Amino acid sequence: MNEIPLDHVAVAVHSLRDAVPLYELLTGHRGSPLELISDQGVNVVFVGPVELLEPTDSHGPVARFLDRRGPGLHHVALRVPDLRAALHRLEEHDIAIIDREPRPGARGRQVAFLHPRGTGGVLIELVEAQPQR
Amino acid sequence: MNEIPLDHVAVAVHSLRDAVPLYELLTGHRGSPLELISDQGVNVVFVGPVELLEPTDSHGPVARFLDRRGPGLHHVALRVPDLRAALHRLEEHDIAIIDREPRPGARGRQVAFLHPRGTGGVLIELVEAQPQR
Repeated sequence: MNEIPLDHVAVAVHSLRDAVPLYELLTGHRGSPLELISDQGVNVVFVGPVELLEPTDSHGPVARFLDRRGPGLHHVALRVPDLRAALHRLEEHDIAIIDREPRPGARGRQVAFLHPRGTGGVLIELVEAQPQR
Repeated sequence: MNEIPLDHVAVAVHSLRDAVPLYELLTGHRGSPLELISDQGVNVVFVGPVELLEPTDSHGPVARFLDRRGPGLHHVALRVPDLRAALHRLEEHDIAIIDREPRPGARGRQVAFLHPRGTGGVLIELVEAQPQR
């Protein structure tokens, strides 16, 4: 199997307006243009390797995370060369998967989330390396 | 300023014996030799870009994290070329810092932690790129 690199870490924030300049200072990267991921109810800005998630929907998963835990680390994303092959392989090992089929994520990438109960409590996103065109 | 890459993400676990094979499966990397970081009260194994932290001391910070939140994402580490310069720069911007001086971390690296109240709720470790010899 290929050795899988980190793609990004995602941080749940109350306000992109506050968080983007802070992460620009911390990482030296410039924030990307804002992207709305409507099926997750979030606005997203990438600041280098950090994805900042601001809820647009008070009942969505990121809003619920903020209610429960406050702002902080939300998930970690690993970059895989072939997402369907990776999901198939993990299912064979009985790893709990949230998205059995790839779905569209930020930046035109295909993504799928694994369930924290299969990963020692970590919400892990798999991101296919190449954006779909 | 340089653009700062992710170095690793750290996951608090109850048992390295369970977590190492799981993360070997998830990431395709082999676990490193176990390292005891005695001043943090943890045993550490790196599996590629994931640092697994198992408490050795039931009163240490990782044990307290597990008691409070259960296993999961503990911190994220950014790799800086010059740790003292990075700390100095962040202090000038009034970012809350836990370690004002670099201290020895895993793998022979110099490290310093920033306080979550200065980073939007995220425990961030800065790691100097080159190990000290």
